[in-house]
Amino acid sequence: MNLEQFQTLARAARGDVPAQCVFRGGRVVNVFTGEVIETAVAVTDGTIVGVGDQYVGETEIALDGAYLCPGFLDAHLHLESTMVTPAELIEQAVRCGTTTYLVDPHEAANVCGADGIDYILEETAGVPANVYVMMPSCVPALPFEDNGCTFDAAQMRRYRNHPRVLGLGEVMDYTATINAEPAMAEKLLLFDGRPKDGHAPMLTGRPLNAYVLAGVTNDHECASPEEVWEKRRLGMHIHVREGSAARNLEDIVRSIVREKRPTDGFSFCTDDKHIEDIRREGHIDHCVRRAIACGLAPVEAIRMATIHTARHYGLHHRLGGIAPGMQADLLVLDDLETVRIRAVYHRGAPVSGFRAQPKLPQDSPLRRTVHCQPVRPEQLALPVGACSSVIRVIPGQLVTQHMRCALPQRDGLFVPQGEFSKVAVIERHRATGKVGVGAVAGFCLHGGAIASSVAHDSHNLSVIGDNDADMLLAVQHLRDIGGGYTLVSGGKIAHTVPLPIMGLMSDAGFDRVQAALSAMIAQTHAMGVPDGISPLTLLSFLALPVIPSLRITPRGLFDVEQMRFVAP
Amino acid sequence: MNLEQFQTLARAARGDVPAQCVFRGGRVVNVFTGEVIETAVAVTDGTIVGVGDQYVGETEIALDGAYLCPGFLDAHLHLESTMVTPAELIEQAVRCGTTTYLVDPHEAANVCGADGIDYILEETAGVPANVYVMMPSCVPALPFEDNGCTFDAAQMRRYRNHPRVLGLGEVMDYTATINAEPAMAEKLLLFDGRPKDGHAPMLTGRPLNAYVLAGVTNDHECASPEEVWEKRRLGMHIHVREGSAARNLEDIVRSIVREKRPTDGFSFCTDDKHIEDIRREGHIDHCVRRAIACGLAPVEAIRMATIHTARHYGLHHRLGGIAPGMQADLLVLDDLETVRIRAVYHRGAPVSGFRAQPKLPQDSPLRRTVHCQPVRPEQLALPVGACSSVIRVIPGQLVTQHMRCALPQRDGLFVPQGEFSKVAVIERHRATGKVGVGAVAGFCLHGGAIASSVAHDSHNLSVIGDNDADMLLAVQHLRDIGGGYTLVSGGKIAHTVPLPIMGLMSDAGFDRVQAALSAMIAQTHAMGVPDGISPLTLLSFLALPVIPSLRITPRGLFDVEQMRFVAP
Repeated sequence: MNLEQFQTLARAARGDVPAQCVFRGGRVVNVFTGEVIETAVAVTDGTIVGVGDQYVGETEIALDGAYLCPGFLDAHLHLESTMVTPAELIEQAVRCGTTTYLVDPHEAANVCGADGIDYILEETAGVPANVYVMMPSCVPALPFEDNGCTFDAAQMRRYRNHPRVLGLGEVMDYTATINAEPAMAEKLLLFDGRPKDGHAPMLTGRPLNAYVLAGVTNDHECASPEEVWEKRRLGMHIHVREGSAARNLEDIVRSIVREKRPTDGFSFCTDDKHIEDIRREGHIDHCVRRAIACGLAPVEAIRMATIHTARHYGLHHRLGGIAPGMQADLLVLDDLETVRIRAVYHRGAPVSGFRAQPKLPQDSPLRRTVHCQPVRPEQLALPVGACSSVIRVIPGQLVTQHMRCALPQRDGLFVPQGEFSKVAVIERHRATGKVGVGAVAGFCLHGGAIASSVAHDSHNLSVIGDNDADMLLAVQHLRDIGGGYTLVSGGKIAHTVPLPIMGLMSDAGFDRVQAALSAMIAQTHAMGVPDGISPLTLLSFLALPVIPSLRITPRGLFDVEQMRFVAP
Repeated sequence: MNLEQFQTLARAARGDVPAQCVFRGGRVVNVFTGEVIETAVAVTDGTIVGVGDQYVGETEIALDGAYLCPGFLDAHLHLESTMVTPAELIEQAVRCGTTTYLVDPHEAANVCGADGIDYILEETAGVPANVYVMMPSCVPALPFEDNGCTFDAAQMRRYRNHPRVLGLGEVMDYTATINAEPAMAEKLLLFDGRPKDGHAPMLTGRPLNAYVLAGVTNDHECASPEEVWEKRRLGMHIHVREGSAARNLEDIVRSIVREKRPTDGFSFCTDDKHIEDIRREGHIDHCVRRAIACGLAPVEAIRMATIHTARHYGLHHRLGGIAPGMQADLLVLDDLETVRIRAVYHRGAPVSGFRAQPKLPQDSPLRRTVHCQPVRPEQLALPVGACSSVIRVIPGQLVTQHMRCALPQRDGLFVPQGEFSKVAVIERHRATGKVGVGAVAGFCLHGGAIASSVAHDSHNLSVIGDNDADMLLAVQHLRDIGGGYTLVSGGKIAHTVPLPIMGLMSDAGFDRVQAALSAMIAQTHAMGVPDGISPLTLLSFLALPVIPSLRITPRGLFDVEQMRFVAP
């Protein structure tokens, strides 16, 4: 704000001139006192200049008894996970009232490093929402990962004073953190005194104390009340997560209500929520509704969705409440039970007209991130003995089992058959030629192969199939188109969802992406994948060496519990 | 914190080595959840490294069921107002459990500008407490004041990144603020997004909205529940004040309890509290006790004294709670009703051994701040007509009345007599020779004069007497000794309290200062000052042109309500 802007706002606040717009006749949710007060709210130049019936506006919006509350904040999410552009995700979520996003672009950083982060910053510069970035702290996720970039403290330094960079993104490498290993310590100390997002499922006791000591300020991985209270007692702010996969809200909120604890250390986040779920049930508004249904007073639920989050991230001078000087991010609600959203305003303007437009140039290097040599047939050969390590997938879960069994073979090489498929992960960032091959039990794709460039967190090319030819074709196709998901059936490309932006996202529009995904998923099930298995999600997580038990990387099979590579 | 320090703390947090000290067997007040939990607290290098019974210490402190709570924060005070050095005030107050101070050195700044602020920073660098400075925003208090220094945004700029400077000090000039006048706007914008202390007694409606719009984040002047809730609803954080003069706590806390409102927007402050009052009833611990007596749950009262304040000032990553990574500022309390303090620790070390030592060199320019020409007898002459403006003082109050009446006179000049005394204010910073003279009714000092270099906010020399000779002697004596209070009786110096540091403070030790003040006050009453009048306080506020109704400045009588100078 400069002097002239300040003076313009001050004139309106004093009432010397009419405000540009007055919201009149509403019931205003006051997140400071926890009250609902019938009063008017005056807005000029996107800023709330006054609260009170004495204000008059050049324009007046009649609320007729509707509720007016501050825009919601999502305390933690990854924009890349929806496969559409950041702007398109926001187009959907902002209509649900989420006007502020605390994003951790660690998928983009794993592929393109600083360029990936710059993409997220640039893509979100013009959206009708406030997007703040937390610096990805664990890129790569583990030191031996073959990802696209090592994003270290030296690279972070230039972002530290960026007006939309608030702190350090989710600190997943808790071992390095509690041991104060130099590379991690350097990142933590770089953001000393600033918010640092946690990611510490099940961490407890002295390791948890050491994690908090390191300066991690919040956690969004709590699944049980016990975990919540142990962390909250140590001063951690708790982001109650309700996304597409992880749904922790009910247990936690019921515990807050039962224990009659203050809500001021709690926020809501989605972490990862798919567009179709946002369309179906909402975004942070869904969290608010669910919390109310769990017995939390509506105003307390709204405080968790607004001022508590703003305060945790040091944004409370501009966001999270309805008061003079705050940004006019406002929601008109029909009532405080269903929290049905009638209108959303960002900086005083309705968001309903916003349509995300593709911005990334066609010749951007971010559209050419699949760099690997053609895979030779012999690279997929998997020599096996009498007893092999096999990844057993479990319906409805991302964790796998490390199974030991005899595999079908010919001439000492694995031959996929029955419930046994072949899986391979091909390094795709630096064309190193690394290919890891293993066996999977329970996926059951027959007569083809499915491949993906979305493969957390390093996003190499993952492929599962029952014959090498289809697997090679699937990989080659993703090489040709720069990434995405593709399904090959009987030697032909059956379905493809191109994700040309870093191999993670598409700017073809959600509806096209979603239609292609649905068709592909239907056919994988038709080809034998059991109903309880989510084929694309499972494929995208098979390479993530931080989820138990057995994973596959470009360097081979990795046992997460033993933290070591194992022979097939 | 550097890497080596972090690693040392992390080892202790993990339990790989014993902590230096473990507080065991206590009931720990958890300000995050509002619980009281029996557990141990481990401390290394002044930092809490872990909470839990599994920690062992090289030293162990047995608490035997006593309560352990975080050190208290005073959200707003002026260190200069006690007449002793900042370190000596802290020596007293830290024993009462106040381990953090948010100070506004505006008295020092009015006399010596940046040098005065540097003095406060240097004097508090070695105390066993955390002292943060808010930049004085209104020096001088009004544009026409004859103070020692204009402390503007340009001078503030170099303090902005000082690790102990948090934001802007109390914004008293609300007119300049709500009108966004350039000089004030520049200061406000310099601290954009950072805490800015308010001072807005009775401000309401649109002017209050404009004041909040300007970015003022808190207020400590609320005297009634109505005022509290109007401000709190606009997002202001409320500092509930309980000092020596202003005592607003009971009304406000009873209202919080009655309305069942969340406490997270409330803190405690003393603003101005004399050493003798601190010794008698305590400091922030007294606020906590009083709040509990008013019906607030003890843990809520402690939250107001700790984490809420830390959070408002962005200090909550280090202060205000008992959690890993936080500074070991800890209080041992006998119980949660009387809040009797058994021991106080700052950075893990007991504070009880601290004794403030004079630090300012004898030849410091800060000891030579009374710069005025000798006052000539004719400068005290007060020509009067048939009807004059007279300052009427009111027992028990700082406000005065603007009285119009006939004054006793000889040859057209005022002659003090009966209830009418003469008052003069002599500019003392730049030897401009300005002397304002007026008449006071109701002070009734007979047979002498009393003078002071403590005269808010500009701290010129104020003198009241019933004869010019004694008034001149009193002023001359303060010139000779560099400031303080002095009482002249019948042509002789009767009592003097030298305040050589900026004419505001003494480093002779509180007991000596207090003994001298008491003797002086007793004699002023013996010389006729009515019991309800606090002679030194009244003298020190007679020149403050922001308290109604009539004041005296070096430029003459000033009517505060009309905001203009008036003829005597």
